[in-house]
Amino acid sequence: MKFRPIERAGNCLRLIDQTRLPGELVFNEYDNHQDIIEAIKRLEVRGAPAIGISAAYALAIAAGRLSETEFSNEEVRRLGEEIKAARPTAVNLFWAIDRLLRLLPENSDGGQREVVPLLWQEAERIHEEDLLMCRRIGENGADLIASGDGILTHCNAGALATGGIGTALAIMYICHEQGKKIRVYADETRPLLQGARLTAWELGQAGIDCTLICDNAAAVLMAQGKINHVIVGADRIADNGDAANKIGTYGVAVLARAHDIPFYVAAPMTTFDSGTESGQGIEIEQRSATEITEGFGVRTAPEGQKVYAPAFDVTPNGLITGFITDQGIRPGGRTA
Amino acid sequence: MKFRPIERAGNCLRLIDQTRLPGELVFNEYDNHQDIIEAIKRLEVRGAPAIGISAAYALAIAAGRLSETEFSNEEVRRLGEEIKAARPTAVNLFWAIDRLLRLLPENSDGGQREVVPLLWQEAERIHEEDLLMCRRIGENGADLIASGDGILTHCNAGALATGGIGTALAIMYICHEQGKKIRVYADETRPLLQGARLTAWELGQAGIDCTLICDNAAAVLMAQGKINHVIVGADRIADNGDAANKIGTYGVAVLARAHDIPFYVAAPMTTFDSGTESGQGIEIEQRSATEITEGFGVRTAPEGQKVYAPAFDVTPNGLITGFITDQGIRPGGRTA
Repeated sequence: MKFRPIERAGNCLRLIDQTRLPGELVFNEYDNHQDIIEAIKRLEVRGAPAIGISAAYALAIAAGRLSETEFSNEEVRRLGEEIKAARPTAVNLFWAIDRLLRLLPENSDGGQREVVPLLWQEAERIHEEDLLMCRRIGENGADLIASGDGILTHCNAGALATGGIGTALAIMYICHEQGKKIRVYADETRPLLQGARLTAWELGQAGIDCTLICDNAAAVLMAQGKINHVIVGADRIADNGDAANKIGTYGVAVLARAHDIPFYVAAPMTTFDSGTESGQGIEIEQRSATEITEGFGVRTAPEGQKVYAPAFDVTPNGLITGFITDQGIRPGGRTA
Repeated sequence: MKFRPIERAGNCLRLIDQTRLPGELVFNEYDNHQDIIEAIKRLEVRGAPAIGISAAYALAIAAGRLSETEFSNEEVRRLGEEIKAARPTAVNLFWAIDRLLRLLPENSDGGQREVVPLLWQEAERIHEEDLLMCRRIGENGADLIASGDGILTHCNAGALATGGIGTALAIMYICHEQGKKIRVYADETRPLLQGARLTAWELGQAGIDCTLICDNAAAVLMAQGKINHVIVGADRIADNGDAANKIGTYGVAVLARAHDIPFYVAAPMTTFDSGTESGQGIEIEQRSATEITEGFGVRTAPEGQKVYAPAFDVTPNGLITGFITDQGIRPGGRTA
């Protein structure tokens, strides 16, 4: 990557403002957790792993800013819960905060000077681990891809969504490194066009052949035989293998099965949530109607139009050929 | 309808500029065929029946503007061919022009004073017939719908696409007249958002319950059991029942079958093209990349991004439950 979407900068967190891509490459520096929560809410940073990493840094920053008298384990836990409430679907957010909170000493408040460096260290560790996990996902997935293959992806599960080279897109980066000629088709991914704004941009920066399509053109490309694999990321994978991901993923999975095209979910093991039995237990965030009716500042629907605007949907395990993880490929529930 | 999207105004054609809906209700008056061709190309008027009607008026206008010395049957035929070249997919365009051209006397040039009124009369007849056909489609289709049903539609096959109350939407208007409570889900229909800008607007004007969704949210609504029927229009139906319609229709048809939801194509018999054997013979218009990358004036993809931008796709007859026409319901090829 020519850029680092997430970076520690002293006692601050520096993020690429992804809402301004691809027009402008703007970095924002945050020195307090409230602004990072806002950045997560407005999708300046998005993607399950990237949200987790940013949240971990946010907690370290928040704990460091407490005065000595304010500081207590209880207060750090409260701050953790505040950060966890930023968005409801991505499990990495909860996982990362919980991992930091486990460092708090059991029976004493330890003291700020002891705890805050531990939180920073753990946040950096989460970040570094993610970088490695991305690479492993890429290597594991690349084995499935032959030179000349066409790959469809939905939304952005790339460097901009993680601490490394992405999950679904990691596979494409590794294929490219290996000299395999791949053709990527990027669903633009309405309403917020992460495919157009982020995936097409990332892959373009890397020199990977990428064709942008409207979401509703995926089916006809499948029928034309242009797509050999579908690979997407995930925001949370339930214990039974049901996977929540960007709205539209479920439809792509149904279409892939109908066209006999393998459908893979690429995600680190940290996206698997053993605490959620099935997809029915995954809370689906509803977004504002204006993301659909006034996308990018132009009103394109009647005033007051009623909309249905889920941010995610759940793809049942039965539609998933396999999970490409940092620990290898796990079979999904799709049998044909 | 509270508005007439297409209207003869003296020797001019008056059109609602559909590119400016729903923000502004602007009528443009055209006194020459070149401007009408441009209006068709830039989708100021769109929808197979509406294009046919506008083209017929355009030919009457063009023939009327010829000087006495310029006028000949050959010249009128040439003008007809010029108008036919406006867009390649909708069969009604060719059908309407051919219908007018058949009025030219066989062995003489007849004379402008005789021919031009015949062309105007035939254009008005096509317009009036379309109005009636829309109503019949609506009545035939309404028999399939029960109060409480949810109906998904794609693009705009409404009053704005025809000379009457539409094709797919005619069914919803008639249901509404009959007092059936229906819930309509309108695919926004990328890239040009005819669902958001036109269908949601039309149905809102009529007081019909309409929820706007991103195209990629249709599948999850189907899985939730919210959709009882899918009804779409068509730009051309081949002899074997393959139907060309707005890009995305094919995917919706695949999803409908996967969820056991009936999929209907609503169209007048004039949209059936016995001259085209199968969907493979239907030319699919490719649109400009900027409709995807710079929709509504805002660039949302990298500069120079490669895109695939077909305006239409073809749904094989095997995915179609039935055709709702002005002459009754014809079975499609879908058996389950």
